Amino acid sequence: MPLTPEQAAEIAEARRTQHSTRRPTVPELEELLFEPLPVLDHGFVRVVDYMGDDAAVVQAARVSYGLGTRRLRDDSGLIRYLMRHRHTTPFEMCEIKYHVKLPIFVARQWIRHRTANVNEYSARYSVLDREFYLPASGNLAAQSSQNRQGRGEILEGAEAARVLEILKGDAVRSFDHYDEMLNEEGRTVGRDPGRKGLARELARMNLPLSTYTQWYWKTDLHNLLNFLSLRADPHAQYEIRAYAEAMLDTVRRWVPVSYQAFQDYRLGGATLSAQALDVVRRRLRGEAVTAEQSGMSAREWRELCELLDWKGESGKETAP
Amino acid sequence: MPLTPEQAAEIAEARRTQHSTRRPTVPELEELLFEPLPVLDHGFVRVVDYMGDDAAVVQAARVSYGLGTRRLRDDSGLIRYLMRHRHTTPFEMCEIKYHVKLPIFVARQWIRHRTANVNEYSARYSVLDREFYLPASGNLAAQSSQNRQGRGEILEGAEAARVLEILKGDAVRSFDHYDEMLNEEGRTVGRDPGRKGLARELARMNLPLSTYTQWYWKTDLHNLLNFLSLRADPHAQYEIRAYAEAMLDTVRRWVPVSYQAFQDYRLGGATLSAQALDVVRRRLRGEAVTAEQSGMSAREWRELCELLDWKGESGKETAP
Amino acid sequence: MPLTPEQAAEIAEARRTQHSTRRPTVPELEELLFEPLPVLDHGFVRVVDYMGDDAAVVQAARVSYGLGTRRLRDDSGLIRYLMRHRHTTPFEMCEIKYHVKLPIFVARQWIRHRTANVNEYSARYSVLDREFYLPASGNLAAQSSQNRQGRGEILEGAEAARVLEILKGDAVRSFDHYDEMLNEEGRTVGRDPGRKGLARELARMNLPLSTYTQWYWKTDLHNLLNFLSLRADPHAQYEIRAYAEAMLDTVRRWVPVSYQAFQDYRLGGATLSAQALDVVRRRLRGEAVTAEQSGMSAREWRELCELLDWKGESGKETAP
Amino acid sequence: MPLTPEQAAEIAEARRTQHSTRRPTVPELEELLFEPLPVLDHGFVRVVDYMGDDAAVVQAARVSYGLGTRRLRDDSGLIRYLMRHRHTTPFEMCEIKYHVKLPIFVARQWIRHRTANVNEYSARYSVLDREFYLPASGNLAAQSSQNRQGRGEILEGAEAARVLEILKGDAVRSFDHYDEMLNEEGRTVGRDPGRKGLARELARMNLPLSTYTQWYWKTDLHNLLNFLSLRADPHAQYEIRAYAEAMLDTVRRWVPVSYQAFQDYRLGGATLSAQALDVVRRRLRGEAVTAEQSGMSAREWRELCELLDWKGESGKETAP
Repeated sequence: MPLTPEQAAEIAEARRTQHSTRRPTVPELEELLFEPLPVLDHGFVRVVDYMGDDAAVVQAARVSYGLGTRRLRDDSGLIRYLMRHRHTTPFEMCEIKYHVKLPIFVARQWIRHRTANVNEYSARYSVLDREFYLPASGNLAAQSSQNRQGRGEILEGAEAARVLEILKGDAVRSFDHYDEMLNEEGRTVGRDPGRKGLARELARMNLPLSTYTQWYWKTDLHNLLNFLSLRADPHAQYEIRAYAEAMLDTVRRWVPVSYQAFQDYRLGGATLSAQALDVVRRRLRGEAVTAEQSGMSAREWRELCELLDWKGESGKETAP
Repeated sequence: MPLTPEQAAEIAEARRTQHSTRRPTVPELEELLFEPLPVLDHGFVRVVDYMGDDAAVVQAARVSYGLGTRRLRDDSGLIRYLMRHRHTTPFEMCEIKYHVKLPIFVARQWIRHRTANVNEYSARYSVLDREFYLPASGNLAAQSSQNRQGRGEILEGAEAARVLEILKGDAVRSFDHYDEMLNEEGRTVGRDPGRKGLARELARMNLPLSTYTQWYWKTDLHNLLNFLSLRADPHAQYEIRAYAEAMLDTVRRWVPVSYQAFQDYRLGGATLSAQALDVVRRRLRGEAVTAEQSGMSAREWRELCELLDWKGESGKETAP
Repeated sequence: MPLTPEQAAEIAEARRTQHSTRRPTVPELEELLFEPLPVLDHGFVRVVDYMGDDAAVVQAARVSYGLGTRRLRDDSGLIRYLMRHRHTTPFEMCEIKYHVKLPIFVARQWIRHRTANVNEYSARYSVLDREFYLPASGNLAAQSSQNRQGRGEILEGAEAARVLEILKGDAVRSFDHYDEMLNEEGRTVGRDPGRKGLARELARMNLPLSTYTQWYWKTDLHNLLNFLSLRADPHAQYEIRAYAEAMLDTVRRWVPVSYQAFQDYRLGGATLSAQALDVVRRRLRGEAVTAEQSGMSAREWRELCELLDWKGESGKETAP
Repeated sequence: MPLTPEQAAEIAEARRTQHSTRRPTVPELEELLFEPLPVLDHGFVRVVDYMGDDAAVVQAARVSYGLGTRRLRDDSGLIRYLMRHRHTTPFEMCEIKYHVKLPIFVARQWIRHRTANVNEYSARYSVLDREFYLPASGNLAAQSSQNRQGRGEILEGAEAARVLEILKGDAVRSFDHYDEMLNEEGRTVGRDPGRKGLARELARMNLPLSTYTQWYWKTDLHNLLNFLSLRADPHAQYEIRAYAEAMLDTVRRWVPVSYQAFQDYRLGGATLSAQALDVVRRRLRGEAVTAEQSGMSAREWRELCELLDWKGESGKETAP
C-alpha cells in the first residue's frame, strides 16, 4: 500500500484535527479514522466518516426523544432481540463511509450490492496509476475439482512461477501501452509531441482486470452486515474476503453490541430447511434417520452432517 | 408542540454534552441539533444526527485522500457544476437523520419517498397519545374549482366553525372510544377491570388520519433534495410543505454551498420542453408565435407564458 | 367485496380478451388473471399482470440464449440450490403486479416494503368510497398479556358487541361528516349549494384508519417472497396475513417450483444461532445441556425447545 | 455479433412458439422479441420479456379496474401530463428485460444504475469466450483538449494503426495466457495434463477491460428512461450510447406515447437555472443582457447561448 508522501500528509493532517460535536461519538473507531488498513498488495480500506453507534439502534427502535440509552443491559437485550428476529430497520440508522482501493475484478463483485452510495475514481476523466494486483504465493490456487466456483490446492514451483510471470508481464505491457496510447505530457516516457494521444475513455480498455481502482463507498449498518455476511463467508473469493475481514474489525470497534449479535445470530448461525429440522427432531427423539428417509438431496445431507458434526456420515451412508 | 417535561429534559441533557471528534463538523447545524422546530399545531422536526458537509461532496467527487477542500472557490464551482449537470452521486455522501412528529395523512405522503430509512412509533406495540391535527383558520381552504388536487378560497365564519367543530368532535370521540376499547390499566379513565381490552393493533383502526405519529427518518442529501423539490413546491399540500420548509432551513445551515446551487438550478429553475425551447428561440429572433403554432397544449402554453412573464397572453391569444 | 356493476363489467371485459404472445405464459395463473380474490370484509387482491415463470429464474441464472429450460429435473435442482444458498438475484427476474383493496392501517404496514412500485388511489384528487373494515367476530381479540404486539383471547358477548358498535358508529359518523364537509354536487345528501365545500386533501383527515384504500403494487419474485415470509408469518397481524395468504396461492400457481423451495427453505425452515447449534450438536452426542449452560436467554431457550419439540422443557428447566 | 449455431437455434426456437395470454400485448415489440440487435463489433441487445404497455401507465395512474384505456386521446394527454410534471410512479408499472452482450468497461458504467435487476455471466464459475472490443476506425478518437472526459479529433493513418495493433495484440496475448493458465481439458490448445490449472476466479484478472461479458438486465420504464436520458445523451461515451440508441428504438415500439412524451419533455427539453430564466425574461422584454450582468459563469453563459441559438455570442461578449 504505497501512499505517496502527499497522500500520507493529507491523511496525517486530517487526523490531527479535533472538533467539538454534540453527536454521538465512538472513541474506539475515532482512533483509526482516516487511517488506511492494508489489504492485498496495494489495496486498503479506511473509515472516512460514520454516523451513530449502538445506542442509535436502540434510539430508533424506541423512537425516543433522548439518546436512546436506558441501561446498557436493556439496550443490549433489545439489540440482540432485533438481530434475532430480523427487525432490520433500526440497524439502518447507523451509517459508515469507507475509502477503498481495490482491484477492478473485486470492485465488480462488490458493486453488486446495490443499496450503497458510491463514487469511483473515473478513468474517463483521469489517468490510472500503474498499480495492479499480484496474488501472494499462498493464494495462487488451482481450480477446485469439486466446486465450479472454488479453489483447490495451492500451485507451487514452476507452475506458480509461470503464472506470476504471465500476470506481471501482461500487466506491465498493458500499462506501457496504455501510457504510449495516451501520450500525455508530463507522464508518458518517450512522449511523441507529434501525436495526439488516444482519449482516456478508450485507452483504459487495454488495462487488465487486476488494475487497482478506488472509491468512496457509504452504506448503513444493516446493508453493511448483509455485505459482510456474504463476503466474509468462507465461500467468498479470497480477494474480496480480505476486504470484508478488515471491515469486520471496524464494525467491532464501532458497534460492539450489534457486532456480537451479528456473530451469534448470523455469521455463527445457520438456517435449517423444513426437512433438516424434521431430521434433527427425530434424531433427538432417538430415531435413526437415513439420507434416503430424509427427503434431502445428497449434497444437503452432507452439508447437514458437517454442520452438526456427524462424523463419518457421507451422503450415501446411514445416520447413526 | 407540547413536549412532556421528561422529553424536554432528555433533549436538554443530550444538548448539554459535547464530544471530541475527528469527523467534519458543522457548527451552524450543531447549534440546533436535537432542538425541535415546531411545525403545524403539535408537530416538529428535529435534526438528531448528520454526516458530512459541503466538503464531503467535493471529497467524494474527487475521490481524494484528504478532507476534500482545496480552495473554497474551487469547491463551490465544483458543487455548482455537479448540481447543474445532475451528477447526483457525490451528494449521496452526506447523510442526515430527523425525528419528526406529523399527522398520519402527512406521513402517508411522505413515505412514498422510498430511498430513506424509517422507524415509526408502533401503534401495534404502544398506545398513541391523544394528539391530532386541527388546521389553523387561515388553512381551512375550499376545494379548488380549477385544480382537482388543489385548494381554493379560505373558508370563513360559520362554515369554518362547522368544519372545525366536526374535525375536533370526531377526533375527541374517536380517542375516547380508543381508550375505552383498550381499557388499559393506568390510562383509561373509568377503566373496567372486568373487561379484557381490545388488542392495540385493532383499537388503532378507530383513530382518524389526523392523529399524530412520529418517526426517525434518515436519508442522504441527494434524496433529501429530491424530497424537498417536490414537497417545498407550491403545488404540494400545505401540511407537508410546512415540514419541507422547516427542513430547507436545516439544509441551508448544514451545506450552504449545495443549498444555494439547489436554489439556483432546481427550486428556482424550470424545465422547458422541446416545443417550448423552439418558441423561445423564435421569439428571441423576433418571430411572433401563437399558441396554435407552438404545438403546445393550451395548458402548457399558459404555463410557459406565466413562467416567462408574458403578460396578457392566455392560451388562445397571439404572442406579442 | 362489493364491486359495482361497472367494475365487474370492466373486469369481465378484460378477462374475455385473448392475445397471442411469444412471451413465457403460465396457464395456471392466467386462469385467475384480473379476478378479485376476496380478503377481509371489503378487500381483495387481484393479479393484473406478470412477467416470467420458473424457467425465467433458470434462464437468468444461466444467462442463456434460449428459454432457460434444460430438463425439468435440472431446473428444479437449480432453483432449489439458489433458494437454499440465498442466491437471490435470479428470483428478481420474475415480476408480478397486483391490484389490492385494503384498509389504511394495513396499507401502512405494507408500504414499509420499499422495493416495490406503488400507485395508490389519491384522496387528494378523488373522493373515497364509504367502505371501512369491521373485524369478523372471531377476529375481535384482546390484547395479549405476554406479547406487547400480539393478540390474546377472543372477545365475546357484550364486550364484542360494544367494540363493534364503537367501530361502526364512529366510522359511519366520520363518513357522514366527510361528505358534509366536502359538500360535493351529486354526492352529498342534503348538499348546501350556498357553501363552498372543504378541499378533499383536508376533509380526508377526518376518516378513520379502518377506511379502505386501493393501489396497484408491483414487485419482483424475490422481494415478494421477502414480503410473504414476514407477512404470512404467524406473528404478523391477522389483517395483513389474510392478504399474504391469498397472495401465497397466486405464487403457487405462478412459479410452483420456486414456491415449493420457498416453503422448504424459508417458510418451513428456521435459523439457529451459534449457541443453539452448539446445544443441538451436544445433545446429538448425548450430552445433557441445561438452559444455564447454553448461553442462551430464557426466551431463546424456550423458542428452541418449541422449535425442536422438546416437550416439558421451559426456560428454567433442565434439558433431558 | 457471431452467435454460435446452437445459440441461433435456441433463439429461433423461442421465436417460433406462440402462446395465448390475457395480458396486454404489444405486437410491434413482439416482432423483435428475442432477436439480437447488433451493437459494436460483437455486442447485442435483445428484448427477452416485457410487462405492460402505454395503457398500463394510464391504468395505474387511475387505479382502474379495467385495462386503463378510456379513449386514446385522453390516455395520451394523461401520459404527457405525467411526463411533464415528473409524476414518475405510473411509468414504473411497465417492466422490460434485456439480454445484453457488452465490453466490461461499458458494463462498469452501466451497473452504476442501481434500480435494476441483474444477472451477469460469471467468470468465477465459467470460462469467458475469446471476444473483445476493437473500436471501428471512425471511433478511434483523440483526447479532447477542452473537455477532460470527452473525445476530440479522429486518429488516422499510422497513429490509428498503432493503437489498433496494441489493443488487438495485448488482448490476444491476454486470452492466450488466460487459456494457458486455466489449462482446461477440451479447451486449452496444447494443454499440459501434468499441470493443475489456475482457478477461474483468479485467471480472469489477466483479461483486459475490453473483454465482452453478458447479462440479463431488467428494469421498469421510469428507470429505463432515466438510464436512456443519461446514456443516449451526446455527452455519454460513444460505446454505451450505442447500446442506449438500440434500446431507444425498442422503447419506441413498446410504448409509443410515452416515448414521444419522453422525447418532447426530456431528451429534447432543457432545464434553465434561475439566472438563465431571468436572462430570457429580460431579453424577451427587449433588454440587452451581458454575460457579466447575468450572474452566470462563462461556461453557463456559453451553454445558454448555444441552447437558444444566439449566434456569435461567446462568454465574454455582449448579448445583442
